[in-house]
Amino acid sequence: MPDASVPADDRGLAYGDGLFETVLMRAGQPLLWSYHLARLAEGCRRLGLPMPDTAALDAELARPGAAALEVLKLVLTRGSGGQGYRVPDAPAPRLLVSRRAFVPSIVRWQEGVCVRLCDLRLGHQPRLAGIKHLNRLENVLARQEWYDPGIAEGLLVDTDGKLVEATSMNVFWRAKGQLWTPPVTRCGVAGTLRAALLDARVVAEAELSFEVLAEVDALWVANSVQGVWPVHTLLDPRGGTLATWARTGHDTLQRQGHRLLGYPGSFRNEAE
Amino acid sequence: MPDASVPADDRGLAYGDGLFETVLMRAGQPLLWSYHLARLAEGCRRLGLPMPDTAALDAELARPGAAALEVLKLVLTRGSGGQGYRVPDAPAPRLLVSRRAFVPSIVRWQEGVCVRLCDLRLGHQPRLAGIKHLNRLENVLARQEWYDPGIAEGLLVDTDGKLVEATSMNVFWRAKGQLWTPPVTRCGVAGTLRAALLDARVVAEAELSFEVLAEVDALWVANSVQGVWPVHTLLDPRGGTLATWARTGHDTLQRQGHRLLGYPGSFRNEAE
Repeated sequence: MPDASVPADDRGLAYGDGLFETVLMRAGQPLLWSYHLARLAEGCRRLGLPMPDTAALDAELARPGAAALEVLKLVLTRGSGGQGYRVPDAPAPRLLVSRRAFVPSIVRWQEGVCVRLCDLRLGHQPRLAGIKHLNRLENVLARQEWYDPGIAEGLLVDTDGKLVEATSMNVFWRAKGQLWTPPVTRCGVAGTLRAALLDARVVAEAELSFEVLAEVDALWVANSVQGVWPVHTLLDPRGGTLATWARTGHDTLQRQGHRLLGYPGSFRNEAE
Repeated sequence: MPDASVPADDRGLAYGDGLFETVLMRAGQPLLWSYHLARLAEGCRRLGLPMPDTAALDAELARPGAAALEVLKLVLTRGSGGQGYRVPDAPAPRLLVSRRAFVPSIVRWQEGVCVRLCDLRLGHQPRLAGIKHLNRLENVLARQEWYDPGIAEGLLVDTDGKLVEATSMNVFWRAKGQLWTPPVTRCGVAGTLRAALLDARVVAEAELSFEVLAEVDALWVANSVQGVWPVHTLLDPRGGTLATWARTGHDTLQRQGHRLLGYPGSFRNEAE
């Protein structure tokens, strides 16, 4: 059963010394599960943590769900012990599992969303880039930049001015007839939907400076839980609009992304 | 009374969304307390957290201690709630307080210590630099670079090759007859002992590239709990020794630092 609490000396709390995964479950089946496990394994390798016993995960996944669509959250910490930053000689990692019902924001899939360019710039740390670790203050600070519910996401650029991601989603654009997403080797999170779209050769990696962001043909934000949201408006944090995009009606990224997430149609879901 | 556990949905655990302080207590009195409160307040300002009620802290501090020297640890998280990275509209921060006996490592004060240059380079994030937040994976990764108990600390440089700090201490050096410490405006933690030494004009801020680190006249690592440790040897992570320093017997930094920490003498303590 999921733990409802952790000891105050848990290293996940003390130092953010751990990893997490947020997984969409449809009718009891975790979507993109092999991608989530692969990212968790890569995180464990980088942090020097043992990979949790997948039998324990399988048992949790076999438990009947309360809703047709759920979000499964895994948190893996290094557990207690050690001496300050020094890790324990024999770590006993702690795995927390929780599930909640999920209702997708359908209107956004159809109409697209308004996003904002964030002031905060992501710092470079290649040792932590890509993995879904528990050190997420940059994301929390960036998400504090706006409270307007009409703004769905914030785009993040790094200290070199390169586009990286959104606060809780990856970012994609179309230019020269191709679909692109930024590399996440210096900062950012390698989303599982992003990884699956790269593997399927729907998108490829490219760098994009924020100065030319408004010149792309189309822009999307996406993750494995929320799906693919087209962007219709990009706001400037200093006020005003940096760019707008009209929906084309022909959305390869959304169709392919939602196919990977098991949606019955590009703009439809069981929740409709 | 201190909380022994936190709910699994605490944002300190989920995102490292919080701050901490580690305070030396001598005979029930917290040392450099005003500096710890000032850093906590600055952290609260940067993260958008309300400063905890100091009456609650005062009550905890008034509790009789179990040892002449103790370490008080405060952890302040944004509590539960919010929606993903988005903070709750009405946050209910969680304050965790714990105390443990502390035995200082006296031999190091007299003989000096051996330290290692770390491979990990600190990334720049001015929005988080200086404050003692809960996103400490860089420090955990750096501390994993060695297990030899003969190595007391690891020196950290940033992505520009500038000296910043040690994994859990600040760093100081002597050059041109003056004492110096690096700025912590792009990365690193602004230690309370460091702040007090700056205020007392014992040291001043300067940048130092790691290439010329071996050319300084003397080197120290220090924090408000461990005190001031002279460095006698600096090891190269690729093997070999980058520099050695002889003790001079006249140690202004250690004398002034230990005066601020209430030690009865430069190399002595109640624990002797």
